[in-house]
Amino acid sequence: MTPGEGESAFLSIKEEVESELQAFMRRKIEQASDATIRGIVEMLSSYSRGGKRIRPVMLILGHDLFARHNEATVKASISIELSQSYFLIQDDIMDQSETRRGKPSFHMEVWNRLFHNDPERKRLAESIALVASDLAESYSHEAIFASGLDRDQALIADTELTSIFETTGHGQLIDIYSTFAENFTEADLIRLHTLKTARYTVEGPLVMGARIAGNASEIQNLESYGYLVGTAFQIQDDILGMFGDESVLGKSVKSDVNEGKKTLLILKALEQGSESERAFVRQCISSGNISDADFEKLKRIVESTGSLGYSRDLVLKMSSRAKDYLHSVNGDEKVKHTLAWAADYIVSRNK
Amino acid sequence: MTPGEGESAFLSIKEEVESELQAFMRRKIEQASDATIRGIVEMLSSYSRGGKRIRPVMLILGHDLFARHNEATVKASISIELSQSYFLIQDDIMDQSETRRGKPSFHMEVWNRLFHNDPERKRLAESIALVASDLAESYSHEAIFASGLDRDQALIADTELTSIFETTGHGQLIDIYSTFAENFTEADLIRLHTLKTARYTVEGPLVMGARIAGNASEIQNLESYGYLVGTAFQIQDDILGMFGDESVLGKSVKSDVNEGKKTLLILKALEQGSESERAFVRQCISSGNISDADFEKLKRIVESTGSLGYSRDLVLKMSSRAKDYLHSVNGDEKVKHTLAWAADYIVSRNK
Repeated sequence: MTPGEGESAFLSIKEEVESELQAFMRRKIEQASDATIRGIVEMLSSYSRGGKRIRPVMLILGHDLFARHNEATVKASISIELSQSYFLIQDDIMDQSETRRGKPSFHMEVWNRLFHNDPERKRLAESIALVASDLAESYSHEAIFASGLDRDQALIADTELTSIFETTGHGQLIDIYSTFAENFTEADLIRLHTLKTARYTVEGPLVMGARIAGNASEIQNLESYGYLVGTAFQIQDDILGMFGDESVLGKSVKSDVNEGKKTLLILKALEQGSESERAFVRQCISSGNISDADFEKLKRIVESTGSLGYSRDLVLKMSSRAKDYLHSVNGDEKVKHTLAWAADYIVSRNK
Repeated sequence: MTPGEGESAFLSIKEEVESELQAFMRRKIEQASDATIRGIVEMLSSYSRGGKRIRPVMLILGHDLFARHNEATVKASISIELSQSYFLIQDDIMDQSETRRGKPSFHMEVWNRLFHNDPERKRLAESIALVASDLAESYSHEAIFASGLDRDQALIADTELTSIFETTGHGQLIDIYSTFAENFTEADLIRLHTLKTARYTVEGPLVMGARIAGNASEIQNLESYGYLVGTAFQIQDDILGMFGDESVLGKSVKSDVNEGKKTLLILKALEQGSESERAFVRQCISSGNISDADFEKLKRIVESTGSLGYSRDLVLKMSSRAKDYLHSVNGDEKVKHTLAWAADYIVSRNK
């Protein structure tokens, strides 16, 4: 199997997911009992387009390691993609982000469509977006019940899904605290990534898939793989978020800094920089609106302090260790190959 | 059986619920992996105190109609009470309400405790409250999985719970739209109450209990009872919200008006009032901050137009029709008696 086969296996599963996701949302639009609700469900349907679908694909790969997936598996896998709308809409309300995936964020879209950006109705638009996010959360559970999984599998899947959401909530709390906590360390950050990203994006879906397939013996190796790949994914995201290409990313490279995010890049620069550099970095992440010149200077500090190199190394190391754990898994070799490709992709992706 | 026996049966179930609810929250506090998360879970635990527990009691009564409940039923019943925190916290963020049950609303409590009411950190407090609400939502599903119900029952219960949440979301959307919709009619309002209150508060829990108990034949009668009692409950709530005693209610009697709520009291006054009265009512609900004098005048208009009388009559009629449906249910007579008491209580309660 060549590296290209890993990618095409991933993409082929992604297509199955995409088609079920669209079918599910079409059904929700049809079921809408009036125009008000239908309008919002249609917006949710458009909003969910263009995602990478990493999570449901991971779920299906987790299943395929031990038993070939069927239609019910795919139908259940979209649960963890539907919840993306739940988390992203709320994230953007909390951060007051105006864009998402290069398009207006959900509450901005509501504000524009329903209220023509009337300043007095911005909160109202956020309220509508919040309720829409809650609907997406309900859909994620419903996708499992309506999947055709047998009752035992459905219960296992929904129990795991609920547990993933709880962990994500804990990560979200720590993320919010990180913006104002005095002593936020690298260890805190890694824990945050473990809770908020790794479990929700890789570890949780993979384990959910394995459990639906009835596997119990390989969970620990999968957890280790998932924790490492998921954490590397987030650190790579932070690197791209500062050094990536805005037109590819679909968001401003300044946004993390403007939101005051203590990414690993920032934490290491704060640790390794001179006193004046540290003061400058602190000023940047509390400014809320960094200038172009300051942003370029900040990037140079992140590079010169070795912070960028440290983060890149860590991503590589985590990806490599993830593959070691994967190697030990007693499961389908082709699927392991695809998961190894995924671990490499994390490292090399540019969006 | 005397009317007092209905109440004492209700209260005795409420005590069972209360004890499981506290045990569940104690366990969540113990499980918290660090001080940050523990702090929020403790606040959730305090926040949930003092509720009427109507929903889990309804669930248990729905079960008891067909089979005596056990410990697992009670453990599962708290699911629909844990979600109260989810909905109330979000409601208060959306409405920017400062109090709930006579205490600070959740986001106000966070703002005060963590940020000493620093105006720059009000949004941050709301974000933390929002994540806390999501945790409560996860807890509500978890309560079912951890209840000890057998797998079939657990899946039935969680499917019903998810469906209730979706309906509540639809009701919430219509509620938000009602504040700015041009033509919001009595029929729209009754539909709103059906979706947002009746299903979530009475019909849903009752049917959930009946289904857990394995009943399928009496669902339609229970739905009718639940729809009527739940809608009457909401209209009575609106009456108390304007004409009740603030010290008993624990909230300002002006708050509905200040939030621009189109309650049945307001809609009927708009329908029956003279032209100048209608203009005055419209002005009151769009003011955002009504004066004492205007509020007294508004109440007089609601009385003199017959709007208050109409609402009171409707509550009585619905309660009475609910009892007719209950009468047809083929289930335990003592439980039916308690449910009849509940239908009467809705009408006579003062808080």
